[in-house]
Amino acid sequence: MLHLYDSNIPSGNGYKVHLLLSHLRLPYHTTDLDLLTTPAETRLPAYLALNPNGRIPLIILDDATHTVLPESSAILYYLAKDTPYLPSTHLGVTQVLRWMFFEQFSHEQYVAGLRFATHWIGLENVSAETRERLQTRGQAALDTMEAHLEGKTFFVEEMYTIADIALFAYTQFAELVGFAVGGNVKAWLQRVREQEGYVTIKDDPSGKAPSMK
Amino acid sequence: MLHLYDSNIPSGNGYKVHLLLSHLRLPYHTTDLDLLTTPAETRLPAYLALNPNGRIPLIILDDATHTVLPESSAILYYLAKDTPYLPSTHLGVTQVLRWMFFEQFSHEQYVAGLRFATHWIGLENVSAETRERLQTRGQAALDTMEAHLEGKTFFVEEMYTIADIALFAYTQFAELVGFAVGGNVKAWLQRVREQEGYVTIKDDPSGKAPSMK
Repeated sequence: MLHLYDSNIPSGNGYKVHLLLSHLRLPYHTTDLDLLTTPAETRLPAYLALNPNGRIPLIILDDATHTVLPESSAILYYLAKDTPYLPSTHLGVTQVLRWMFFEQFSHEQYVAGLRFATHWIGLENVSAETRERLQTRGQAALDTMEAHLEGKTFFVEEMYTIADIALFAYTQFAELVGFAVGGNVKAWLQRVREQEGYVTIKDDPSGKAPSMK
Repeated sequence: MLHLYDSNIPSGNGYKVHLLLSHLRLPYHTTDLDLLTTPAETRLPAYLALNPNGRIPLIILDDATHTVLPESSAILYYLAKDTPYLPSTHLGVTQVLRWMFFEQFSHEQYVAGLRFATHWIGLENVSAETRERLQTRGQAALDTMEAHLEGKTFFVEEMYTIADIALFAYTQFAELVGFAVGGNVKAWLQRVREQEGYVTIKDDPSGKAPSMK
């Protein structure tokens, strides 16, 4: 059976994989690594041997060689092939990847970064420079999404794909941490929540982050 | 004919596309946008209409609808399909994407960021906090590459792929801006330079960055 490594605090990147697996109704095991110990369990030698980058999520495939696959976006791509969550044309797949690369380079680090700073670090412990960087660049990414979604249902080819799953994971928290979220993005967030097999992100066991249930 | 939008200052992201197009011997036109004007030409309405994210590179395909495609990694994926620069198996493509997502999330912003700060902004104009962040996280990414390359020729399946092209673009500058680059990475950089059709990144017209020729 597929094995997913996630973290104890609710990671949007781990959630992306849970959400797709729920849509696909695929059974899997999960190991939640503790990120709040020192060192974090993702930095222990046993885990670094699986992923030298020391990050979650990571999956181990149920194949002959127990293939190890890190990087949430690559995991989504692997699992979505030949399913309704990825277009069948090369250009369609390319456009999905275009938005997934946008999410990793221009969106996640800022939107997820401000969420982490708000709930777990405490904004009072973050420099004005960092706060300004997270806010300005995160808002620019959200504005890019708002412009692109004008007149559209989903990000690519009017179908719900892993590009939507990747972008939903942290965008769902944007307004809670002070970003301005436009009407197109809000309507799109709601359309994602209405998809067959949708599940919410798990609650934070420490209670620092608000529940999304 | 394919049309590539690049910048006047030598962008590693623009260079990735030039390098693959050179390997593939595909003809194309280039428009270099001026990033040093205020506002930068990438922030003018005509360009934002092509890419609301306001970044280069971007290609316009030579198809019936003149399809617009931004994001360097998505462009590489689009162009490399069914060529020797992308594996033919689904798992092979996935492993290539895994390293390309690593490059965009964990590598580029830090290694390219320190290069930009060193040559164009001036390190004296960058806060100690930013400098520390770029140095620490960039070094971590380079160390991850060094560990992965142990005993390997290239990043995926012992073949030269767009994962190598994506990672080469900024790693070639790493030592010049003060990162420690290990023996595995140095030998790999040299193997990339020896590939058929290899071209160097263009010179900086302002002369601020050293030539790589």
